[in-house]
Amino acid sequence: MATVASGIITLTTDFGLSDPFVGIVKGVILGRFAEARIIDLTHGIPPQAIADAAFWLRGSFASFPAGTVHVAVVDPGVGTERVILGAEACGHLFLAPDNGLLGPVLEGCPGARCVRVEAPELLRAASRTFHGRDVFAPLAAELASGRARVDDLGPAYVPATPSVSAAPLVTPDRALGVVVTVDRFGNLITNLSRVLVERWPDPVVTLDGREVPLVRTYGDARPGELVALVDAFEVLEIACVNGDAAAALGRGRGTPVAVGARPLRPRQS
Amino acid sequence: MATVASGIITLTTDFGLSDPFVGIVKGVILGRFAEARIIDLTHGIPPQAIADAAFWLRGSFASFPAGTVHVAVVDPGVGTERVILGAEACGHLFLAPDNGLLGPVLEGCPGARCVRVEAPELLRAASRTFHGRDVFAPLAAELASGRARVDDLGPAYVPATPSVSAAPLVTPDRALGVVVTVDRFGNLITNLSRVLVERWPDPVVTLDGREVPLVRTYGDARPGELVALVDAFEVLEIACVNGDAAAALGRGRGTPVAVGARPLRPRQS
Amino acid sequence: MATVASGIITLTTDFGLSDPFVGIVKGVILGRFAEARIIDLTHGIPPQAIADAAFWLRGSFASFPAGTVHVAVVDPGVGTERVILGAEACGHLFLAPDNGLLGPVLEGCPGARCVRVEAPELLRAASRTFHGRDVFAPLAAELASGRARVDDLGPAYVPATPSVSAAPLVTPDRALGVVVTVDRFGNLITNLSRVLVERWPDPVVTLDGREVPLVRTYGDARPGELVALVDAFEVLEIACVNGDAAAALGRGRGTPVAVGARPLRPRQS
Repeated sequence: MATVASGIITLTTDFGLSDPFVGIVKGVILGRFAEARIIDLTHGIPPQAIADAAFWLRGSFASFPAGTVHVAVVDPGVGTERVILGAEACGHLFLAPDNGLLGPVLEGCPGARCVRVEAPELLRAASRTFHGRDVFAPLAAELASGRARVDDLGPAYVPATPSVSAAPLVTPDRALGVVVTVDRFGNLITNLSRVLVERWPDPVVTLDGREVPLVRTYGDARPGELVALVDAFEVLEIACVNGDAAAALGRGRGTPVAVGARPLRPRQS
Repeated sequence: MATVASGIITLTTDFGLSDPFVGIVKGVILGRFAEARIIDLTHGIPPQAIADAAFWLRGSFASFPAGTVHVAVVDPGVGTERVILGAEACGHLFLAPDNGLLGPVLEGCPGARCVRVEAPELLRAASRTFHGRDVFAPLAAELASGRARVDDLGPAYVPATPSVSAAPLVTPDRALGVVVTVDRFGNLITNLSRVLVERWPDPVVTLDGREVPLVRTYGDARPGELVALVDAFEVLEIACVNGDAAAALGRGRGTPVAVGARPLRPRQS
Repeated sequence: MATVASGIITLTTDFGLSDPFVGIVKGVILGRFAEARIIDLTHGIPPQAIADAAFWLRGSFASFPAGTVHVAVVDPGVGTERVILGAEACGHLFLAPDNGLLGPVLEGCPGARCVRVEAPELLRAASRTFHGRDVFAPLAAELASGRARVDDLGPAYVPATPSVSAAPLVTPDRALGVVVTVDRFGNLITNLSRVLVERWPDPVVTLDGREVPLVRTYGDARPGELVALVDAFEVLEIACVNGDAAAALGRGRGTPVAVGARPLRPRQS
């Protein structure tokens, strides 16, 4: 059963907002589908940071109505022969380069289907540097208007590039994860899911060999205190209450974070 | 007489635009009210800077059609038992935490009414860290669609947290105010209203013991000159013509600024 | 034949997004034309950088449907007697101060027509510092709604301020241009058009006396390499593949860039 388009398009890019790139993409969409509702998911992905885009897209898409078209353009391969993916997953529609960006979404959606986009007339006329305008925007308008379905865009395809998501290393005693992104408030957001955190009865969270108290909510600690908690995206984050944990710790993407069983104290002698 | 919803929702937050938080809020709104017109007032409020949000919301809301729903989420208390306010004021509708943010709006709108939002099913399902998505967005959709009125959200309530606005200290000779925010151009924006500035026939504006010439418009001075003028928000600002006054003076929020009568010159002897 | 309004309005300003200025402009537009589709082209123009706004507006407007109203407010002269221009050019509508900003658009649109906006009731009520809200927003709503045409705004007028665009210096051997703006990725974008680049059979691009290899697409070089290419705006840019050319070279706006014939090698002796 094909997903019915909601008429909404979300955009996730590393274009930033200082130039008119995002506005131009919207102009092209409106020229082909005047009724489109276009929502910026974020354009603040650091240049070429595919993993950040993948994390946030995975954590965001389900907040939109089913049938929304999610366009993600973090595309270091623009101008090469890289494939463009179309996908239908969890009742939503997706367009992105085949560079691992869609991996986390596809992993989380059993039954997801991908196609390899074939759009020879668009590609022939496209610039070498701005496929957001010349390829992704027209395709998004076709999908969101319901004039095309994902299956109309090209043949079934298995993504060639591995997912950018890195699974934590899980042993019986602990799970070793990593900070995948840092948000605007300086919260260090990890790839350790709620399920992992709740695997041990009295879990201990450690970063740089230091235990970080696990709390339920920011309000359980005092301003300035460092805490760990399962956040609104159902993953463990390290936060500084009313402060900036990344700045306080001098740590960012790639920092190892572990959660696991509380070590048994050596018996006092 | 209840205000009729315009279908427009404005958002004022400290979420920034580097993460997808704002986009997610919009997705939830559109899922509940597909026709919503959602306008970003600003998401560049510094983290937890309630006073900046309060100032700008007060200066902005009346530029929108009556019946607009204004959602302001600068919320250091998220995850605690803090109250969420609904308000109807000056023909507009408001949602914000009870942390003083709505104070200036309520002070400026005689007859404003507040309720304490009771939304047990939303709060029960809400995350501990993202009430913008889980609580404010659904409430905004209900108000903007006209399905709920402010009075439907909960019982009448008097805000428990004092307004964040600080009134200037007014004596017969002068008014002593403060820089409440600094805008993108480096203009130092004070809490000294036009009424105060016009209270004295030939008013003198001083900052750091230095007189700043009071002009009617930027064009009355030369590029690079420091001037004081009553700005588009009807308050006194200190500006550097075609430049950045905050950088030129090395001053920002909290800087005292005075306006008052010109001191009598001692008689020449 | 008058252009029929598309109902779309684009905004290009130096307002930034940290304050609510852009949101306020949108509120005023929606109050006068509830069905307006308002698209941000960019608000990240550096303060008072008319040339950057002019370049991007020229490169962006044609991506929108004909009949779109493009409002550009980079306006160091706000509060003075400077003229506001209305224009109809290439089937699009424009509003901007008469400060050279519209020059590149008008130069590229044979048959473009300008008027000097006369809006005495708006100007009488306007603040001295925020004509985006008080003058441009109401005018844009009138044009975009189709209630007014450009010719209704005032008498025909020849812009008094020269275009901000600077033409390259072209000699038989080479064209000497300049970096006009730097985009979010650090690409140095010049005023050297594709036509100029293709004027010589084997063109050489030089910056700071150094030859920069001319390629067709980023994919023709390795990550980290410096390249020159004709970009999606049909002008020459200097890029660092998957990197930041402006940072790598320590160069920005105003940097001279030349393209020309390959010099004949002196015969080996």
